[in-house]
Amino acid sequence: MADTVTDSATESFKMPRLDTRDEDFGPLLEVLLDWEGVSDAEVQKRVSQIIEDVRTRGDAALVELTRRFDRVEADSVEALTLSPERLEQAFDSLPDAQREALAHAAQRIRSYHRHQKPESWQYREADGTLLGQQITALDRAGIYVPGGKAAYPSSVLMNAIPAHVAGVREIVMVVPTPDGVLNDLVLAAAHVAGVDHVFTIGGAQAIAALAYGTESVPRVDKIVGPGNIYVATAKRAVFGQVGIDMIAGPSEILVVSDGGTDPDWLAMDLFSQAEHDEDAQAILVGWDAAHLDAVEAAIERLLPTLERAPIVRASLRSRGALIRCRDRDEALALVNRIAPEHLELSVADPESWLHEVRHAGAIFMGRYTAEALGDYCAGPNHVLPTSGTARFSSPLGVYDFQKRSSIIHCSAKGAATLGRTASVLARGEALTAHARSAENRIDD
Amino acid sequence: MADTVTDSATESFKMPRLDTRDEDFGPLLEVLLDWEGVSDAEVQKRVSQIIEDVRTRGDAALVELTRRFDRVEADSVEALTLSPERLEQAFDSLPDAQREALAHAAQRIRSYHRHQKPESWQYREADGTLLGQQITALDRAGIYVPGGKAAYPSSVLMNAIPAHVAGVREIVMVVPTPDGVLNDLVLAAAHVAGVDHVFTIGGAQAIAALAYGTESVPRVDKIVGPGNIYVATAKRAVFGQVGIDMIAGPSEILVVSDGGTDPDWLAMDLFSQAEHDEDAQAILVGWDAAHLDAVEAAIERLLPTLERAPIVRASLRSRGALIRCRDRDEALALVNRIAPEHLELSVADPESWLHEVRHAGAIFMGRYTAEALGDYCAGPNHVLPTSGTARFSSPLGVYDFQKRSSIIHCSAKGAATLGRTASVLARGEALTAHARSAENRIDD
Repeated sequence: MADTVTDSATESFKMPRLDTRDEDFGPLLEVLLDWEGVSDAEVQKRVSQIIEDVRTRGDAALVELTRRFDRVEADSVEALTLSPERLEQAFDSLPDAQREALAHAAQRIRSYHRHQKPESWQYREADGTLLGQQITALDRAGIYVPGGKAAYPSSVLMNAIPAHVAGVREIVMVVPTPDGVLNDLVLAAAHVAGVDHVFTIGGAQAIAALAYGTESVPRVDKIVGPGNIYVATAKRAVFGQVGIDMIAGPSEILVVSDGGTDPDWLAMDLFSQAEHDEDAQAILVGWDAAHLDAVEAAIERLLPTLERAPIVRASLRSRGALIRCRDRDEALALVNRIAPEHLELSVADPESWLHEVRHAGAIFMGRYTAEALGDYCAGPNHVLPTSGTARFSSPLGVYDFQKRSSIIHCSAKGAATLGRTASVLARGEALTAHARSAENRIDD
Repeated sequence: MADTVTDSATESFKMPRLDTRDEDFGPLLEVLLDWEGVSDAEVQKRVSQIIEDVRTRGDAALVELTRRFDRVEADSVEALTLSPERLEQAFDSLPDAQREALAHAAQRIRSYHRHQKPESWQYREADGTLLGQQITALDRAGIYVPGGKAAYPSSVLMNAIPAHVAGVREIVMVVPTPDGVLNDLVLAAAHVAGVDHVFTIGGAQAIAALAYGTESVPRVDKIVGPGNIYVATAKRAVFGQVGIDMIAGPSEILVVSDGGTDPDWLAMDLFSQAEHDEDAQAILVGWDAAHLDAVEAAIERLLPTLERAPIVRASLRSRGALIRCRDRDEALALVNRIAPEHLELSVADPESWLHEVRHAGAIFMGRYTAEALGDYCAGPNHVLPTSGTARFSSPLGVYDFQKRSSIIHCSAKGAATLGRTASVLARGEALTAHARSAENRIDD
């Protein structure tokens, strides 16, 4: 089943190596991990202008900007709208294998995400006071799907299904179609995932339309999904007006190997990360020197057989590494230092590691759990915190499409008890109207 | 128990009124609710410089900037550090009533937030594949507490206790002490809430120190807590490097009254919101015209008795309103349109309203549940989404100090099944290293 396409570049490749025993390992690791997204003033300015244009001129601006940037001729936003029938037709037109794969992935993603659904809760205290938390779904979610060369149906599933499971009333998808080219797999994924509306618009203009609404595009409450620098800049700009998901950095994997996994498998796991783009990061850490040599050899042997070898080579050269460490404990310390987006524990007893992993977006356990399985169909989300942000962020999930409201219902007796405490604290803060509002409920 | 301080201003006050029957009600409501935080280029520039300075010079910059902005002379960050003993001493030195009120509030807040603690979960599929979600706490959280004129011990409790309940290993608090003035209530609250370290620094320099770490201040994973425009701008700037909570707009309340609550109580509830600052928003909505007149009269009569009457007057004049609507349904539509930070359902049967409230930060139910009770001691958090962001955000909670990691452990059989689906989808996306990584695990 292995591909045998030969890389056109003939140059040999040397995988970068690091060793925790080296004196300068600390600073070298810092450099390797360093990533700061640049915010270009020119991009910011153009994005602000586009947002302002869509806010003030609505549909007319959308039609014009779509003509200019995507070279799509349309005389109205209606002509940039795809009906549910069109999505279904795309699904029906797929080859059987693709249709079944899409349905299988969607079913598994849906099933996993259902486990994330929290329940509203309440409890009553002795004096009759009721406290609780009510969970509600967003009214409307917007899903941004990149078009053109990097059109990923899996991304449609991963962004739209959690919204659907959360109970969002209306899911609006935007996807640019440069030169009018539609991707049937993407439309079919939208059908499977329960998307309600699709507009074939993209860029900062699509983000602006979702954030503020136009005559035809409904205003949403939150925008999720990946995009280029214009999309990311626009999302940052409208944050506050609507919710947004995390702005993602380059994708990364950290593989921990105990030496027992086939080096060819590990090489391909690293490639699967590195093939995303030149900035993607693939790192393997282990304490078995001979095994690391074998992985290095496998990388050098297999790299030329990859379709995307030039991208993989560039990525591994500038951001990849095989790291030799002293032992299991040091490997774990590296895991928690790096807080990787994807962590592959290619070890004999991954369960024994789990409670010591404090920071990771997703944890792929054992020799059989290739990251690629999680990218498409294992069930958990593939939208994950990058660049060390797993220290404080979570995978995209049902919880991103819901919010909580606190519930407080005081009994007369409860209000009197609480009122006394509130009064003392409010007066301590010199907020006397707060104090008097509480005191009104004290039944003297 | 009522205060009788007379307002020095003698001008009469007319509470603004709106009516949903008026033709221009829609646009008038838009204007009333409109709020956009301004980001001043000058502030942005100064904040960037301060952050850069602290990143490069660490402690030395902190000492210098604290001398300049807070007029505190210290020759090291050690001299800007408060020990746990100092916090305990502050607590012990309080009058009994304050000490008891603080302990009572902390106990209730802790008890409510314990209900928010999620559990890690796992499930095993028929072929042996394990899927799940692991919950872990942040390593370190930073709490910003404003100093000077608006020093709120309740804010210390509300920000630090959820972090403590979440299991955060280390809670670092920063609080500026302009001219060296310490607020014992704030320090006592830090003691009660389980804060580990306190640094008497503030402003953008404190945010920079927490985000990047210095020789003495440990780098944290997330920064929460309110602050002035410099603090807010700095938080936005370091977002990504660390997590931050929502940037808050002015505080607001929406009271719905069915006409059965004492107009004097309702007037004081509105004042308790309006006294925060001139931009705070207090709105009451109801369908009983005579009752609204009575509330208006109560406002005009009681306003001059408030300590903070000038602030309340300015707030109500520019951002307050009594809104007359047609009926209960229209009141509910307004609630969901406004998505208020605080919603007071001052009605006979608040339970019957609950499932129709889709957007609100906190819901105060019935005539006895003054918002002020929730501000201090009912249990739920008083850090809530403002300016309509309750459409997509939640109160600060335990979940803000934890994150999730997806868990995938495929059996050999599971990997083979998933591998086939992943292979088809990966090839559909032209990501062939992904496909081959998955195919390696198919046991042919």
